[in-house]
Amino acid sequence: MKLADKVKTIGESLPPPAMPAANYVPYVREGGLLVISGQLPFMGEKKEHVGRLGDNFTLAQGQAAARACALNILAQLNEAIGGDLSVVKQCLRLGGFVRAVPEFAEHPAVMNGASDLIGSVLGKKGRHARFAVGVASLPFEAAVEIDALFLLNK
Amino acid sequence: MKLADKVKTIGESLPPPAMPAANYVPYVREGGLLVISGQLPFMGEKKEHVGRLGDNFTLAQGQAAARACALNILAQLNEAIGGDLSVVKQCLRLGGFVRAVPEFAEHPAVMNGASDLIGSVLGKKGRHARFAVGVASLPFEAAVEIDALFLLNK
Amino acid sequence: MKLADKVKTIGESLPPPAMPAANYVPYVREGGLLVISGQLPFMGEKKEHVGRLGDNFTLAQGQAAARACALNILAQLNEAIGGDLSVVKQCLRLGGFVRAVPEFAEHPAVMNGASDLIGSVLGKKGRHARFAVGVASLPFEAAVEIDALFLLNK
Repeated sequence: MKLADKVKTIGESLPPPAMPAANYVPYVREGGLLVISGQLPFMGEKKEHVGRLGDNFTLAQGQAAARACALNILAQLNEAIGGDLSVVKQCLRLGGFVRAVPEFAEHPAVMNGASDLIGSVLGKKGRHARFAVGVASLPFEAAVEIDALFLLNK
Repeated sequence: MKLADKVKTIGESLPPPAMPAANYVPYVREGGLLVISGQLPFMGEKKEHVGRLGDNFTLAQGQAAARACALNILAQLNEAIGGDLSVVKQCLRLGGFVRAVPEFAEHPAVMNGASDLIGSVLGKKGRHARFAVGVASLPFEAAVEIDALFLLNK
Repeated sequence: MKLADKVKTIGESLPPPAMPAANYVPYVREGGLLVISGQLPFMGEKKEHVGRLGDNFTLAQGQAAARACALNILAQLNEAIGGDLSVVKQCLRLGGFVRAVPEFAEHPAVMNGASDLIGSVLGKKGRHARFAVGVASLPFEAAVEIDALFLLNK
């Protein structure tokens, strides 16, 4: 089955994969591992989901930002596997960085925006370990950044 | 040898493994890797080790929090390996997030609370790489969160 | 080819690998993976590159700090592979933590200081995934900390 079709079944569509502007790559696929660079919640050039939890950003806004990061992760995954879901063995881990004030405490709820999406699209293969922490700042003042590690069928 | 017995030799006991409340799992074991989700320093439902280094939390309190995170990591490891230490090949990495004020500088000393415990229990198999960084906020205002990566004998 | 010679071709030289003072190791090499502990931008005992982006540290200073972290990563890599570049298969990921004020937004530009160095020295093998996030505090008030994951030819 195609990953792009699976994403459509939950009412979303894959964004074009973000291209890094520097001397690194959006993902590395080697030795059965797929390491995906930290994804921001921007679609294309537009800087969306800019804010800070506990300040000018609600929990629902944070979850939407995490969901957008997860869509960008899936877009990179799609590129890496040539669209073919059978190549995916398992999502091993999501690493969640939430931009928040020092008193913010609901990072797990924010990250559920990403975890739920990955779970909806990938099913059992989407059951992942994760961490969720709060950071003072993020690139372009994005509210969330998430990186990912997958295991592939070589 | 049983991991639970080894933990007892250092005067500790394994807590029940924490269950995540969301669409992710406490660990993923695939392809010889064991990826353990970020562990907080809580035992069961009780929110212990809540604070901020450099503010209302001493270095000793931070080390105790890191040690509690490490016990929770061992609890997840124990589940994953069915209690059998011979399944563990190596602890590859601990990722340490310390909740601290911007001027705090002693993250390595805090993380030693976790590294010392892992080393005491796992011996040579417990010699790990790690990072230790300071974050503005953590889930439920916990003082420390630590994730882990192990290599297993498949 | 020797890694140390390659580093010289870009006008740098490998520092001595930093030794951790605690119950962890600078790197773990197991199962084809090389996990390198978070590296600070210090050379030997001297605490250089101490500061905070957006406060008392310019972008150029941040990039220099990231470059110093990358040199320390290469120093650990060099130890792990006994100097022999043919052992390196791929740099899989750099994890970048930038000490910054909450409004700072240029983490990718800071991390380019590290990514450009790794790319210059390792070429195609240096094309890595990465994340770049902003943290409130770092050990010894360093401006940047970077960890790394490599795949080796076993």
